Amino acid sequence: MSQYTPSTTPRPVVAIMTDFGLGESDVGVMKAVIIGITPETQIIDITHAIPPQNVPYGAWVLSYGYRYYPKGTVFVCVVDPGVGSSRSAIAVHAGDWYFVGPDNGLFSYIYAQQTIHGAVVLSNSAFHLPQVSATFHGRDIFAPVGAHLARGVALHELGTSLDPQALQRIYVQPPERYGSRIDAQVLYVDTFGNLITNIPLSTVPDLFSSKHVQIVFLTNQVVVDRRRRFFAEGPVDNQPFIFGDSSGYVGVALQNGNAARSLGLGPGAPLTFDITE
Amino acid sequence: MSQYTPSTTPRPVVAIMTDFGLGESDVGVMKAVIIGITPETQIIDITHAIPPQNVPYGAWVLSYGYRYYPKGTVFVCVVDPGVGSSRSAIAVHAGDWYFVGPDNGLFSYIYAQQTIHGAVVLSNSAFHLPQVSATFHGRDIFAPVGAHLARGVALHELGTSLDPQALQRIYVQPPERYGSRIDAQVLYVDTFGNLITNIPLSTVPDLFSSKHVQIVFLTNQVVVDRRRRFFAEGPVDNQPFIFGDSSGYVGVALQNGNAARSLGLGPGAPLTFDITE
Amino acid sequence: MSQYTPSTTPRPVVAIMTDFGLGESDVGVMKAVIIGITPETQIIDITHAIPPQNVPYGAWVLSYGYRYYPKGTVFVCVVDPGVGSSRSAIAVHAGDWYFVGPDNGLFSYIYAQQTIHGAVVLSNSAFHLPQVSATFHGRDIFAPVGAHLARGVALHELGTSLDPQALQRIYVQPPERYGSRIDAQVLYVDTFGNLITNIPLSTVPDLFSSKHVQIVFLTNQVVVDRRRRFFAEGPVDNQPFIFGDSSGYVGVALQNGNAARSLGLGPGAPLTFDITE
Repeated sequence: MSQYTPSTTPRPVVAIMTDFGLGESDVGVMKAVIIGITPETQIIDITHAIPPQNVPYGAWVLSYGYRYYPKGTVFVCVVDPGVGSSRSAIAVHAGDWYFVGPDNGLFSYIYAQQTIHGAVVLSNSAFHLPQVSATFHGRDIFAPVGAHLARGVALHELGTSLDPQALQRIYVQPPERYGSRIDAQVLYVDTFGNLITNIPLSTVPDLFSSKHVQIVFLTNQVVVDRRRRFFAEGPVDNQPFIFGDSSGYVGVALQNGNAARSLGLGPGAPLTFDITE
Repeated sequence: MSQYTPSTTPRPVVAIMTDFGLGESDVGVMKAVIIGITPETQIIDITHAIPPQNVPYGAWVLSYGYRYYPKGTVFVCVVDPGVGSSRSAIAVHAGDWYFVGPDNGLFSYIYAQQTIHGAVVLSNSAFHLPQVSATFHGRDIFAPVGAHLARGVALHELGTSLDPQALQRIYVQPPERYGSRIDAQVLYVDTFGNLITNIPLSTVPDLFSSKHVQIVFLTNQVVVDRRRRFFAEGPVDNQPFIFGDSSGYVGVALQNGNAARSLGLGPGAPLTFDITE
Repeated sequence: MSQYTPSTTPRPVVAIMTDFGLGESDVGVMKAVIIGITPETQIIDITHAIPPQNVPYGAWVLSYGYRYYPKGTVFVCVVDPGVGSSRSAIAVHAGDWYFVGPDNGLFSYIYAQQTIHGAVVLSNSAFHLPQVSATFHGRDIFAPVGAHLARGVALHELGTSLDPQALQRIYVQPPERYGSRIDAQVLYVDTFGNLITNIPLSTVPDLFSSKHVQIVFLTNQVVVDRRRRFFAEGPVDNQPFIFGDSSGYVGVALQNGNAARSLGLGPGAPLTFDITE
């Protein structure tokens, strides 16, 4: 979607995403481990408010913004319901970035959108903390591995090479098109209560120029057929409207209101999208 | 209020304030854009918990602490209900700092308290991301402009000069004094539930030395006439008291309790303040 | 518990823990003061979600992770119900780290676990902000003192030396052992709703190898006698199980569920722990 080309920074950047919340000290401890290994790291929090163990949601949030991070950024991502089980810990070099975390589908969008240059199982314990717990791989494996990548350790030193085809993927529901109709769903509700669908804006270039556009939410038969190019366009009339979200997907919003709450809709809600030229 | 003189730091500092919350990846993406342009930036989060689109609240929170930031700090502030409409995007050099954001009154306290050295409309797209969305100017305009300012780009390069008189201002309700009585209001409820009024401590230098001081909240006729110079002064008696808040304003608190909840009061609640010498 | 040896970093590190929440600008202002004094500081947030004025909880959260921070890290900790009263402001050099905050027991676990090399009352106002408020010592005293320590100022320059024996301590409830039975309690509920007890894993090395282990929660007589070495071991059967938490203590959890809510238990809940070889 974006044509933004991020720069290559001279300072290593590590971006962290977890489902830990900010109520505990776990995120801070991961940063402490990273800084202990690569002191000059610039650490950026993606978010730590992924709903606990919600891998699909985490995958989506990561996919939303990773392209804006500088080339070479190491993403350390921990949404990991299988911690301590046989699920693998991995590092993947895809596009211009590195991704470190559990092999549970958290990077599915990345695999779909970027060329995978290499992938390894994190089998080389020389790059882990000396003592690895059964429940906190974020601190003991992912943070130190991310810090070593950030200081320039090569991917292949981190462990055994892995066939990119074997990487775990979750099913990322694509919308289905039947002529002028698209069967789609709500992917996500943002902070403002906007309903973000799984319809890429790039697939509907005539969203604002066509004669008529209509979304019908199937669970409650609510019809939305107004369009706004930006939120402050038109009066505050408390009517939902279709807009192009900055994530690159079609959205439904209320100006100065919460569309999800007003319409009683949330992630997964099915909808049909019709466009009349 | 404060006589603290911040130092000039050799490392660029960008401070960010938004109403995005921390549940999404938007704040992280803004930081990624900044670091991509000016890698050595020291980024400080002011807060991202401004209630959505509440410009007066955001203006107040910003005014509370900006003086403590190093000289040259660039404040990137996004509380922007008018994003995508005709409201201007601006950068202002005021006092020892730079302020970047929408021209909607978010910087009203700054304009009232500091000398404005220059202001521009952000019309030079060379300092924006290549592709500007209609809904996320924080990422596409304000973050990159802030990063360019932080690396030393001159204000006038960012766009067309603007008459400081033309900058949008919100009405910042001042208290009104009638002899020994001040008609005022609750400006703000802090994390601890303390009620912070709009009466500057500097206007009541005899707050603790005068014979009697009394606040009457007009909506429920609650009278508060105890005073404490600090929270732990006196017994835990569950009685509200008047204190001098570190923000520089008169406050009302309960020791180990939540005054706002106990008294059923919030922002905007009218009050009279009486002082007897 | 951990045998991790943190490195010594060339860049100063300051870690901050408060009960301020992230809704206000107070944490940002503390960082601004630190960066103004020591611009190259790497600042790490431990957490700012300590329940307001809950010193025992703050002490516990700090104890959980400080060992993972680089040697020389300065911890600036503000959970301070007595701010402005006669409680002292202190800095302590213990183990490989420095601790700055109120003398109210917040560092009790540190004192119990590390050698105290020195302690001072922060009586030298040359290292404070020029104007010290009665209610925000985090900004006016602790942040600047922490920044000066981080840039290399010696501990003894900060104020009058203090006998380590005189430092305030809170009672850190240890479990009591009677043969194979341990009388203990819930110390803490983590983000996932796991109940973390005050029984160190090091005191029950046979937790997973013994024939039978049983926890009885005394308030509701709930018995937990399943054990899991990691969360994803065994089926999702909605039954609570005993596990070894990464904090180094025995915990009780539900896979994909919230044990605290399901069992109706919280911090302080008494329990007995029985182990049969």
